[in-house]
Amino acid sequence: MQWNVADLLERALAEDIGPGDLTTAATVPEDARCTAVLTAKADGVLSGIELFRAVFDRLEAGVCNWRGSANGTRIAVGDTVATFSGLTRAVLTGERVALNLTQRLSGVATLTARYCDAIAGTDAVIVDTRKTTPLLREWEKAAVRHGGGRNHRFALYDGVLIKDNHIVAAGGVRPAVEAARASAHHLVRIQVEAATPAQVDEAIAAGADAILLDNMAIGDLQEAVKRTSGAGVVLEASGDMSLDRVREVAQTGVHLISVGALTHSAPALNLSLEIRNE
Amino acid sequence: MQWNVADLLERALAEDIGPGDLTTAATVPEDARCTAVLTAKADGVLSGIELFRAVFDRLEAGVCNWRGSANGTRIAVGDTVATFSGLTRAVLTGERVALNLTQRLSGVATLTARYCDAIAGTDAVIVDTRKTTPLLREWEKAAVRHGGGRNHRFALYDGVLIKDNHIVAAGGVRPAVEAARASAHHLVRIQVEAATPAQVDEAIAAGADAILLDNMAIGDLQEAVKRTSGAGVVLEASGDMSLDRVREVAQTGVHLISVGALTHSAPALNLSLEIRNE
Amino acid sequence: MQWNVADLLERALAEDIGPGDLTTAATVPEDARCTAVLTAKADGVLSGIELFRAVFDRLEAGVCNWRGSANGTRIAVGDTVATFSGLTRAVLTGERVALNLTQRLSGVATLTARYCDAIAGTDAVIVDTRKTTPLLREWEKAAVRHGGGRNHRFALYDGVLIKDNHIVAAGGVRPAVEAARASAHHLVRIQVEAATPAQVDEAIAAGADAILLDNMAIGDLQEAVKRTSGAGVVLEASGDMSLDRVREVAQTGVHLISVGALTHSAPALNLSLEIRNE
Amino acid sequence: MQWNVADLLERALAEDIGPGDLTTAATVPEDARCTAVLTAKADGVLSGIELFRAVFDRLEAGVCNWRGSANGTRIAVGDTVATFSGLTRAVLTGERVALNLTQRLSGVATLTARYCDAIAGTDAVIVDTRKTTPLLREWEKAAVRHGGGRNHRFALYDGVLIKDNHIVAAGGVRPAVEAARASAHHLVRIQVEAATPAQVDEAIAAGADAILLDNMAIGDLQEAVKRTSGAGVVLEASGDMSLDRVREVAQTGVHLISVGALTHSAPALNLSLEIRNE
Amino acid sequence: MQWNVADLLERALAEDIGPGDLTTAATVPEDARCTAVLTAKADGVLSGIELFRAVFDRLEAGVCNWRGSANGTRIAVGDTVATFSGLTRAVLTGERVALNLTQRLSGVATLTARYCDAIAGTDAVIVDTRKTTPLLREWEKAAVRHGGGRNHRFALYDGVLIKDNHIVAAGGVRPAVEAARASAHHLVRIQVEAATPAQVDEAIAAGADAILLDNMAIGDLQEAVKRTSGAGVVLEASGDMSLDRVREVAQTGVHLISVGALTHSAPALNLSLEIRNE
Amino acid sequence: MQWNVADLLERALAEDIGPGDLTTAATVPEDARCTAVLTAKADGVLSGIELFRAVFDRLEAGVCNWRGSANGTRIAVGDTVATFSGLTRAVLTGERVALNLTQRLSGVATLTARYCDAIAGTDAVIVDTRKTTPLLREWEKAAVRHGGGRNHRFALYDGVLIKDNHIVAAGGVRPAVEAARASAHHLVRIQVEAATPAQVDEAIAAGADAILLDNMAIGDLQEAVKRTSGAGVVLEASGDMSLDRVREVAQTGVHLISVGALTHSAPALNLSLEIRNE
Repeated sequence: MQWNVADLLERALAEDIGPGDLTTAATVPEDARCTAVLTAKADGVLSGIELFRAVFDRLEAGVCNWRGSANGTRIAVGDTVATFSGLTRAVLTGERVALNLTQRLSGVATLTARYCDAIAGTDAVIVDTRKTTPLLREWEKAAVRHGGGRNHRFALYDGVLIKDNHIVAAGGVRPAVEAARASAHHLVRIQVEAATPAQVDEAIAAGADAILLDNMAIGDLQEAVKRTSGAGVVLEASGDMSLDRVREVAQTGVHLISVGALTHSAPALNLSLEIRNE
Repeated sequence: MQWNVADLLERALAEDIGPGDLTTAATVPEDARCTAVLTAKADGVLSGIELFRAVFDRLEAGVCNWRGSANGTRIAVGDTVATFSGLTRAVLTGERVALNLTQRLSGVATLTARYCDAIAGTDAVIVDTRKTTPLLREWEKAAVRHGGGRNHRFALYDGVLIKDNHIVAAGGVRPAVEAARASAHHLVRIQVEAATPAQVDEAIAAGADAILLDNMAIGDLQEAVKRTSGAGVVLEASGDMSLDRVREVAQTGVHLISVGALTHSAPALNLSLEIRNE
Repeated sequence: MQWNVADLLERALAEDIGPGDLTTAATVPEDARCTAVLTAKADGVLSGIELFRAVFDRLEAGVCNWRGSANGTRIAVGDTVATFSGLTRAVLTGERVALNLTQRLSGVATLTARYCDAIAGTDAVIVDTRKTTPLLREWEKAAVRHGGGRNHRFALYDGVLIKDNHIVAAGGVRPAVEAARASAHHLVRIQVEAATPAQVDEAIAAGADAILLDNMAIGDLQEAVKRTSGAGVVLEASGDMSLDRVREVAQTGVHLISVGALTHSAPALNLSLEIRNE
Repeated sequence: MQWNVADLLERALAEDIGPGDLTTAATVPEDARCTAVLTAKADGVLSGIELFRAVFDRLEAGVCNWRGSANGTRIAVGDTVATFSGLTRAVLTGERVALNLTQRLSGVATLTARYCDAIAGTDAVIVDTRKTTPLLREWEKAAVRHGGGRNHRFALYDGVLIKDNHIVAAGGVRPAVEAARASAHHLVRIQVEAATPAQVDEAIAAGADAILLDNMAIGDLQEAVKRTSGAGVVLEASGDMSLDRVREVAQTGVHLISVGALTHSAPALNLSLEIRNE
Repeated sequence: MQWNVADLLERALAEDIGPGDLTTAATVPEDARCTAVLTAKADGVLSGIELFRAVFDRLEAGVCNWRGSANGTRIAVGDTVATFSGLTRAVLTGERVALNLTQRLSGVATLTARYCDAIAGTDAVIVDTRKTTPLLREWEKAAVRHGGGRNHRFALYDGVLIKDNHIVAAGGVRPAVEAARASAHHLVRIQVEAATPAQVDEAIAAGADAILLDNMAIGDLQEAVKRTSGAGVVLEASGDMSLDRVREVAQTGVHLISVGALTHSAPALNLSLEIRNE
Repeated sequence: MQWNVADLLERALAEDIGPGDLTTAATVPEDARCTAVLTAKADGVLSGIELFRAVFDRLEAGVCNWRGSANGTRIAVGDTVATFSGLTRAVLTGERVALNLTQRLSGVATLTARYCDAIAGTDAVIVDTRKTTPLLREWEKAAVRHGGGRNHRFALYDGVLIKDNHIVAAGGVRPAVEAARASAHHLVRIQVEAATPAQVDEAIAAGADAILLDNMAIGDLQEAVKRTSGAGVVLEASGDMSLDRVREVAQTGVHLISVGALTHSAPALNLSLEIRNE
């Protein structure tokens, strides 16, 4: 059973509301309605607006007159991101969870956009990693797309990626690739990690479909591109991928550049919800 | 029913493993064991090491010879944070979830420690907010303690905090506080948000037990401290709380300084897991 | 995740219906509708009528023409409490669970009202305890309010109440209160149990915000009220609180009187559901 | 999926503990152990002692030296019902749930025993009804057995009991019984409610296997017994079954006497848990 | 809590869709609609059509213009079984689960109909067993009814069936039947397995309400019928019940013939779903 | 969250046991133990023996002296498949679920083995489909492997398979393949269905990695093999794959032959559990 929006929101709201929102229950009349305005307090790229909205629907806020920007929209400080009308109790009870999700996801989209901007004009593509926030992977991977990046495999079940530790355990690149080939069905590709040009050769010889170039210097990346030219192999560069360095990496000719920071270290995008009585 | 370690790990592992770890199942012999070493790639404060360990226990990794630093330990780049022996399959399958959790929580602890260091010697205390990662609040609040901070209320159910929107909906500070008093049982305190010294006076007059001083300039904070002197009221400063500014805020005499960035914008602490066959 | 109406009814109906209501499925046509009348067979105070209704909604009874008394209504033997029209199968299948809940909760409200009547004119307030029916606390606490009482803390998480056993384990009243103060956030009050006037003094000295006067004789209660006069401390009397004695306790000047019997020993209020074909 | 002890305790503990026992966590050292003594404060019959114990096991209290009376034991005021050693934190955190369950179930067993005593020497048997506390039926039905009674059907799925409303909906006793016979498999018996001797005749003629004699006067009960003599039909008397009247009912020769009050109106049996440090 | 349609479909769809239908999401426009036609590729009896439909409703396919045959309908190769309009994505994503369920259940109904046809004109009835597909019992038992059969007890909880192993463990037929009588409530019948006419006598003597004639030859079945004539005991023949032999068994005069193959070995009925764009 | 053995058995046992096994509870002493012997009543290949065992472990049968054949073992009528000692109650209560699972899975393995035998000596491989029993896919796919086959993709999420309906919705083979390529990450292969040699050409031209040859005659299969020779494309034959025809298909040179009947129409393998008291 897949973890989905309903599960996520149920759990997130349970975490924050628990047995009840003491303050709102005491101070807000049950049938009061308000107009709520979501405003950007910083520049960035929007993501997670559907979760923001879904929080209030789940709390049965009676949302109407919804006007909201789409995920992927570039927003500037002071922009109105969304406005809607709803029951004040539900709006105030859900506000923090809604903001926590949307600010975090917009932070991911915003950082991704900065990386994509940095390599604009090259043939490389920014992709994410599995270094996501536990329980939020699906939405963080969407945020990467909203920021202009693409996704790597989702998880351990939808692609074979043989890393150095697997190679050690299998007794070498060749036995590792062969074991993977024998085990996987015919619609799965096999990627192998390589830290040196020599290991790139070894991976090719073993029949890898794609190679993860781990923490390679620019010169080694260039060498890897040269050695695999025409072999139909996908090359992915990874490791120490700062905004300062990413363009140079892109220019080596690798196909994919994976960046863990997109999801493990993006600061939240500052958003604010203000409310007035109707 | 409370969301607990078992639920968190079940979900987090399901997210990453799903129907199965194709690579490890294919390349690692079922009974192979390894020694794993967790190393710091940056300076910081450790948090979440119990989750790191629990991931492997949950995957029935047959962990033995565990040696790990305690949460709250200050660690430096190159330090060995933990070593253990386990079944290679389980170690490789759980590695990413274990690291994702521990790096994130250690990032929170590390940033908290920087804030605490910044106000060292003052009487103020750094506290967290509800701006936590959904589903990780319990552990992020622990990370704040590991970094030297204290916790604010956990959620909406264990304290009354009347914010500006509640005041509007209730028709003023006094009716809001009275409504809260009438509703809450006798073991709950009531805190009210104030943005100006005048609002501080109003909150005191209404009978607030604590005041949230929101986005106040240093002068206003000092005025708030002066006006409430001797009233037995807890003062909490909040908003725009950069590392540059926090010490000056602490010196005004407020009791608590709450910092959202501790949990919404802390970069992950870089940790690495290396493995060798046994 | 909070246990809520939907969970309660799902479980309660599963318990009674299980794989299916053999009798109703066999003897009642699928599309037959009936008019149902809920009648009081005894005097009392109504509580749980929303659950009564919710049972039939959950069973998709197609309820219409609903006319029902509100929770908190004083009802007399022979009164019609509610009437509605619905699908006969769902009405008969849900009848027992609906009655089991409403009779029990109305029993709690009825007994609470008797206690409140007994202390009418004093300044004391009747409050409940945690001696509730497992899984029904939320609704039994509402029933206490319907009967005119107020609620104590909901559970172990929303208030600190240091009982004699905690004092023993902590090594005295003072260390217990200090430990609680160091651990709790700033919006939680601390109550301490005392069995003698001397222990009341000790609790006050340790900084307690409220005191539970356990099983004290009237004279000791009076003494406790006298000794804490003006200290801003809440006094709660508890233990052996029969209807015969409660008024005398209330007249001592304690603020709260907690009565476990409200929820652990209230007899069900007799209600009956009669049905006729439409 | 059946609601079982683990589910019951998980939910009941979640209800009372929720996010955490603030008092115990603050005041009791993590590794402190205590000896706990459960004492009877009133005379009665014990039931639910296995749940009492299971609460502490579930909280991982490290229970040892357990000595407890068995369910069904007649206990007198002042009796030690159980003693054990355990971690103080777990003992104090679980105390209330453990007592709430055991006091309630012992209350049911105690009241059942009084009814059984009242009819001692007759051939009749006291049985329970479906008027149980929602979510506790399994344990309340066990409590009835501990008190000396027997159980009626567990729920709607394990027996056919055609009541007056079913008869109305089906268009009479005969069509109701025939419909039930056509629908049920061959291992299910069919019982029909009757309020007069004439209806008893009708039920017999329709082929009922058992008859529920509802709210009949003693004379009518005697008549029902006479008319069904030798027919191999089970007779159950029900309604207004006070302790004063039950013996007279039993003497009419009915086989079963069902009493709703056993489970819907039994007062809790007073038990107390006292603890001393080890 | 009962396993129901919603649970079944949630799990079945999760199993097949998991994190997402890669093909459909990529190739089908989000708002495209289609007309879908379900066609029989073989002769048989329809069952499970409500699940077929429910799959698409659960996937929010926006089904309209539904025209479908009823469960129990005899269908011939080439017949249109159902047509409907819906969102193409949901239709294609749900197709396989919908077909897997309906083909399997129709297979059960079809085989049952063949058995019923084989004994047409006798007084015997074809019944199912507990040899059903795990998690599908409720629907497979309905399929047996759709095919013209009747149901045996649903499971272990709604009837007593004492098999040879129970007899051994209990120390004989008599003690087994007596123990069952002492334990069961008064609405449950008791069936006993017998492999020889002598054991039939023993079961009757012990007071059995029904007898399972296990793997008996025709002669022994005839003998069993003769020996129990007039005793009001239900006779069920079981074991090695091929289509070739079942009529002869029916003619012995047994009341029920149970056939495990109905649910454990019925081949799926071939159905096909074709779609065209709207 | 993945559906796993524990979930499967919990549900399957709940389905069969529900509120309790009336017969066993009444007739078997609580501490009686037995020796159980599982015997083959037909020739075949064993699968699901780990589930058979797990049923008893889950019921806490205290299994010891377990001797069982391994999955994949070829067994003959009369063979002892497993023997063990356990608590009689648990053994009898779990027997039916254990047998239902193992007989079904062994049926799948047995039929797979017959297909594999039929193509022995060719280069083709027998693979399964998604036409599995809902909720049992993981185990049925293992059964296919135990019978000597291989697995196709597990579900909709781990491979792209563009069928005729997707082609229609996408507006042709080329746009469908291009859309899939744009959407999928770099470790997923793309397979396209083709019904004629011309469609095979079209799929190749569009860049398909694999082709599903649907319901093709032998001549067309040969033509497809010829046209794709050397293109590195995987060819899978599917449709109407009887045991009579499968060898001829294998001899065309296709790589994979998928057979739905392996999982949707395999008759159960007859196994029997006999027990004797210890």
